[in-house]
Amino acid sequence: MMKKARVAFGGAIHDAFDVNGSIQLDDGRFVEEHEVVWLPPVEPRTAFALGLNYADHAKELSFNAPKEPLVFLKGPNTFVGHRAQTRRPADVTFMHYECELVVVMGRTARNVKEKDAYDYVAGYTVANDYAIRDYLENYYRPNLRVKNRDACTPIGPWLVDAKEVPDPMKLTLRTYVNGELTQEGTTSDMIFSIPRLIEYLSRFMTLNPGDMILTGTPKGSVDTAVGDEVVTEIEGIGRLVNTIVGDEHFSIRA
Amino acid sequence: MMKKARVAFGGAIHDAFDVNGSIQLDDGRFVEEHEVVWLPPVEPRTAFALGLNYADHAKELSFNAPKEPLVFLKGPNTFVGHRAQTRRPADVTFMHYECELVVVMGRTARNVKEKDAYDYVAGYTVANDYAIRDYLENYYRPNLRVKNRDACTPIGPWLVDAKEVPDPMKLTLRTYVNGELTQEGTTSDMIFSIPRLIEYLSRFMTLNPGDMILTGTPKGSVDTAVGDEVVTEIEGIGRLVNTIVGDEHFSIRA
Repeated sequence: MMKKARVAFGGAIHDAFDVNGSIQLDDGRFVEEHEVVWLPPVEPRTAFALGLNYADHAKELSFNAPKEPLVFLKGPNTFVGHRAQTRRPADVTFMHYECELVVVMGRTARNVKEKDAYDYVAGYTVANDYAIRDYLENYYRPNLRVKNRDACTPIGPWLVDAKEVPDPMKLTLRTYVNGELTQEGTTSDMIFSIPRLIEYLSRFMTLNPGDMILTGTPKGSVDTAVGDEVVTEIEGIGRLVNTIVGDEHFSIRA
Repeated sequence: MMKKARVAFGGAIHDAFDVNGSIQLDDGRFVEEHEVVWLPPVEPRTAFALGLNYADHAKELSFNAPKEPLVFLKGPNTFVGHRAQTRRPADVTFMHYECELVVVMGRTARNVKEKDAYDYVAGYTVANDYAIRDYLENYYRPNLRVKNRDACTPIGPWLVDAKEVPDPMKLTLRTYVNGELTQEGTTSDMIFSIPRLIEYLSRFMTLNPGDMILTGTPKGSVDTAVGDEVVTEIEGIGRLVNTIVGDEHFSIRA
């Protein structure tokens, strides 16, 4: 596996692979990007997310850098794949995108030291961890109305094998809204590096294969509107496209 | 289904049922309580937990009652079944038990009104939502070191059908440590009732069948020690037994 995705096509769910820029399914068929429904490349199980993990973003918000990682959990309801629609509720004022590098665990990790941490990583993908800022009464651990709404965390398109990423702490992150560059940063600006996060978490709980760590966002996260196309892109990892839609697509009752 | 459990026995996982106080497996065999490994009665998916949801507990801690529900998520690693062992790490000073009523959702719930909320409930079970108080820097949304360690949330033994519980807001909760009663309260003391919690959560996200809500604990939550047998019991719902063990059972590396 170098770049792997999960897609729905022809009545079934398939693994898909990048073959020199073309998309090949596990049954050998080639498909076009727009022909399939892209699912999260990893089935969401335990998903951690970081608050205020970029020095430039903490500074932008006039916060002191945190002294230990500010980690919270995200539920499976919030994850959708590449090219999905994300709802912007009519009754909120601020819905900010957040381009984030996602670490996907590959081995059971317990009491792992920083120097060994990369041995436990399967690969990387891209997330857009939207935040409904209206309800952010506390930056240090956002509540569920901010960070856990349905379909508010697009992720993908690809899980890129860790072997293909020589240094995940030196990647450029960029967000484009309707084609215009609005956020740019580098993973080297993380306050708690990937190895430190794995050491920190695995000291008090077991990390399992498939667990995800959303590592935070750099500065430049701004508001979005219904109709926007938001592209979050990380060098060598992927280009994740998401479209914002309004309440009119969603009926009141299940 | 009136009272249903999930157990491992004879090389397989089975549904188990309470038949006049005896335990019958889905294949017809009868077993004794100590012969099986009890699993959580519901496969953990999205699990919500409440902070400070009992008036007497908030008062005991000298906190004002919260103005809206203080909800956080729990990961699947933290759940274990009836008669499990829970580790008390040697390097912590306070590990408090917390007897809690668990609501298990039965139908997809979105924008549900308080008056209709019980229609969406499959049933109830018991949890002991241990807290490592050392790390509780903020009562209003506990961090993962407090509430998400491996095996720190025993749950079970039974999922009791909602039809068997005429009024879940009038149940007595009790905790016994080594046979001595140490915590006693009633669900009528909840600040946010079960119907209000379902209305609150389903207003901003979809609740799915099998999702669990751990509804908080009354006053009387105190410290425990290695070797303790902790029994959390809720009237008509179940009697959940847990034993606290030390670090010596756990090797350093996975």
